[in-house]
Amino acid sequence: MTEPTLLVLGADPPPRLGRLTGRAHVRYADESSLADQLPLADVLLAWDFTSDAIRLAWPGDGPRPGWVHTASAGVDRLLCPELINSETVVTNARGIFEEPIAEYVASLVLAMAKDLPGTLELQRQRRWRHREGLRVAESRATVVGAGPIGRAIAGTLRALGVTVAITGRTARPGIHGADQLDRLLTRSDWVICAAPLTESTRGMFDSRLFGLMQPSAHFINVGRGQLVDEKALADAVAKRWIAGAALDVFEAEPLDPESRLWDVPGLIVSPHMSGDTVGWRDRLGEQFVELYDIWASGEPLPNVVDKKRGYVPMHD
Amino acid sequence: MTEPTLLVLGADPPPRLGRLTGRAHVRYADESSLADQLPLADVLLAWDFTSDAIRLAWPGDGPRPGWVHTASAGVDRLLCPELINSETVVTNARGIFEEPIAEYVASLVLAMAKDLPGTLELQRQRRWRHREGLRVAESRATVVGAGPIGRAIAGTLRALGVTVAITGRTARPGIHGADQLDRLLTRSDWVICAAPLTESTRGMFDSRLFGLMQPSAHFINVGRGQLVDEKALADAVAKRWIAGAALDVFEAEPLDPESRLWDVPGLIVSPHMSGDTVGWRDRLGEQFVELYDIWASGEPLPNVVDKKRGYVPMHD
Repeated sequence: MTEPTLLVLGADPPPRLGRLTGRAHVRYADESSLADQLPLADVLLAWDFTSDAIRLAWPGDGPRPGWVHTASAGVDRLLCPELINSETVVTNARGIFEEPIAEYVASLVLAMAKDLPGTLELQRQRRWRHREGLRVAESRATVVGAGPIGRAIAGTLRALGVTVAITGRTARPGIHGADQLDRLLTRSDWVICAAPLTESTRGMFDSRLFGLMQPSAHFINVGRGQLVDEKALADAVAKRWIAGAALDVFEAEPLDPESRLWDVPGLIVSPHMSGDTVGWRDRLGEQFVELYDIWASGEPLPNVVDKKRGYVPMHD
Repeated sequence: MTEPTLLVLGADPPPRLGRLTGRAHVRYADESSLADQLPLADVLLAWDFTSDAIRLAWPGDGPRPGWVHTASAGVDRLLCPELINSETVVTNARGIFEEPIAEYVASLVLAMAKDLPGTLELQRQRRWRHREGLRVAESRATVVGAGPIGRAIAGTLRALGVTVAITGRTARPGIHGADQLDRLLTRSDWVICAAPLTESTRGMFDSRLFGLMQPSAHFINVGRGQLVDEKALADAVAKRWIAGAALDVFEAEPLDPESRLWDVPGLIVSPHMSGDTVGWRDRLGEQFVELYDIWASGEPLPNVVDKKRGYVPMHD
């Protein structure tokens, strides 16, 4: 039996695939060579998950890999109608990013509650100015997104004593349906977006939703930039419709140095790093090798994306 | 029966003592008038707990109040030998500051783990630079101080998955003795000082202790400034003996605008605000009124300070 061909998109830095030696013929593609190499691949690893190359290269002639794995939680960048309607199985990196993102969200909630940005700015000015923090325990949060990342965020905030509601596409035990979101937003101190980017969530955080939130509310986005109308958010923070916000993801990344978002008072901008803790690339590589073992054995893969919905459904 | 005289040190802003109308003759003192008024008082409320006035005014002639309550956790500012050796009962604000300080410490731990100061500095420069955070879960912390504040800090960090050791003056169940501190420091990612300031803890964090810590360790002080040799800490951070630190308390407060501490890279300076959440002064006033009810009824007071040790002993 010949070795399957594993095509890897992105190699900066490359994944550690030494354990596949003799078991896979590994080829690397970049954005410009992907379309030509795609017909040769049995498996495609989207190692550079920030690229649109797969969505762009997939339509066209020739065979296509039967399995695509993305080293990311979201699959929005690679899905196109031709891939959705194909037999190709798509898997994601479920299990890698949940805890880091939950910790990151907790860091933002606590930092905003205790005005750490204000403290650091006053420190730069060598000014001693006492302020009063907000109590986090017994505050209320709504987490938008009922996947494993949203649930992990809820778990960490609950450990800090926060009362958390989770909203998903449909209501189920422990999860509110999307029809409850308006009501929940009017009473939340923290609104956290961890939803998948799909046609039904794109642009969902608009001026209407920001207008429903309390003037004391803070908004955090660790999902995808396209979930938020950035102009509406910047206006909501600048006009003090809400008390503050933190964005880790943006419509266009990296964020343009000329973007207005960099200096809206009360808005924290971070460079899409919420899920990335020391060693994260190694963990992503190890996870892919584990999935490869399962695929090579012919067993069913875990973490399979519902391509029509655009995320891995929860089974519970 | 005549109303007892309640002397209040500090009135900016004053405590809400309306519930004591008709039950206490309330007088206010400032630092200059305290010595003259002290002989007239049955009860002294140290509302301005940042003042040294009580320690300075207490020695001298004339009667002294039988009960002193301080609206603070620490009692280091008011104890003097004459008060220690008197019959006067001293109580503190146990119960008010634990949760806020625990949340504040968690905010610092998470902010340092996720390099939020770096994020905010890069944002000022409009620079998109991805970095990798530290994982907080399964990291190790040592909390120095086994009172209710130290225990609350430990509880909150444990809720975030941190493995926490607490050290106190003596070993007891769940608490390591001071003789274990050196060993614990060599293996801690986070070292948090929440000890009372006493003659045996003054200056305990010196260059020797900072030298024991790991280069990856972070130090946080929410106890009292005098627990730390500030020059040794500044050197330890500046020379990268340790990875970073956060000080909320200082040898002299407010911190001198000329102090070197304001701009040591990796050192966060905040203005003694860790315990102060919105409404904290109201809660301190309510607590005092509750204690006053108990005192007036002749029942034994809670939160009684062991004046020789310099803190309220835990009973467990």
